[in-house]
Amino acid sequence: METQQHISRQYNQELESVKSKVLKMGGMVEDQVEKSISALIEQNSELAKEVAESDYKINKIEVEIDESCAQLIAKRQPAAGDLRLIIAIIKVITDLERIGDEAEKIGRYTQKLTSMKDEVNMYAELSRLGDKVITILRDALDAFARMDVEQAIRIAGTDRQIDEEFERVSRILVTHMMENPRNIKTMLHVIWCARALERIGDHAQNVCEYVVYLVKGQDVRHMELE
Amino acid sequence: METQQHISRQYNQELESVKSKVLKMGGMVEDQVEKSISALIEQNSELAKEVAESDYKINKIEVEIDESCAQLIAKRQPAAGDLRLIIAIIKVITDLERIGDEAEKIGRYTQKLTSMKDEVNMYAELSRLGDKVITILRDALDAFARMDVEQAIRIAGTDRQIDEEFERVSRILVTHMMENPRNIKTMLHVIWCARALERIGDHAQNVCEYVVYLVKGQDVRHMELE
Repeated sequence: METQQHISRQYNQELESVKSKVLKMGGMVEDQVEKSISALIEQNSELAKEVAESDYKINKIEVEIDESCAQLIAKRQPAAGDLRLIIAIIKVITDLERIGDEAEKIGRYTQKLTSMKDEVNMYAELSRLGDKVITILRDALDAFARMDVEQAIRIAGTDRQIDEEFERVSRILVTHMMENPRNIKTMLHVIWCARALERIGDHAQNVCEYVVYLVKGQDVRHMELE
Repeated sequence: METQQHISRQYNQELESVKSKVLKMGGMVEDQVEKSISALIEQNSELAKEVAESDYKINKIEVEIDESCAQLIAKRQPAAGDLRLIIAIIKVITDLERIGDEAEKIGRYTQKLTSMKDEVNMYAELSRLGDKVITILRDALDAFARMDVEQAIRIAGTDRQIDEEFERVSRILVTHMMENPRNIKTMLHVIWCARALERIGDHAQNVCEYVVYLVKGQDVRHMELE
């Protein structure tokens, strides 16, 4: 019995350790996204470079967590509930890694933008979109950390606001392009950044859906969340 | 011993059944991508509508496979090698589902494009990109089906050709936009389609990387494959 408890304590520790690695990865991703948005809006080429070159750290931790999950399953043969947690983690970190990729892309586009000569001055238009994306990402990670299904459902619903904001920004950028066709190439880079932000919102929504799946055991991934 | 063999036979059947579901899903995804490209290039609004409205089938099968994987782990407590297969499957189907999403987007954009009045006639420019994407996707699924790590490595390397073709198409579209600024809004929809095709190539590359991970036990996901 004591051995049993000992094994179970060790198992819980391992499970907690994986969970805290996921939260650490979430923090790194959030940090990258924030920096990429600042770099873009302030046209800070150094910060953009930093973001573009730090993505490998996120990739590395994803691989580590996958490995830990596989080991945990093999060694501990977790029961249904824990298994669902582990599968949700494997899915969540895939989305986190993709968010890191999008932040990296924003960093790369920003580096190109700072080296282009066109004066576009449209970056402030992206700040509201950036704010909304940071908020949904932070809230999604928080819902995951606390396994808060109510919050997860609420947040997943706000992804639509991001799509609307993206549409608003697109319209402004298209109008600018029509008026200044010489800047089209530059403006396309700005649009790619807006697109990357919108994608980050989609991935944050996926994280929320995994929280619901995890807690409710019900797969809401492809249902309307409202 | 007989029971043991019986269990092991049943287990193998279950594992094979999951694998064949993944291949079925792969076939559905390939079909959706082919249709979306035809719809785009031929500006066929009916086919576009069909693609846009069939994605739920792919989503459904993803959820089913996830569920089968969870059950298989819980019931059979697979050993290291099989576990790696199951984790690779969970990752692969996430990419397949996202490929389905991109095909759906191409369907939606095409529906919009067919209802727009601008005469852009740039669709033939996308056919080479479409062909390359179909090829990489088909080869990736084939490498997965046969667990052919050599092929997987070779294919993953061809993703760069898709990026180059995307760049070529982008340049043509940008030139067209600069010459015909009134068509910018329409052209952006064409560019979104090209972007979606490029993303499908990225996801196909991910599938190849999971095959290598699976067979070699080595994670090449974030390394250069050459």
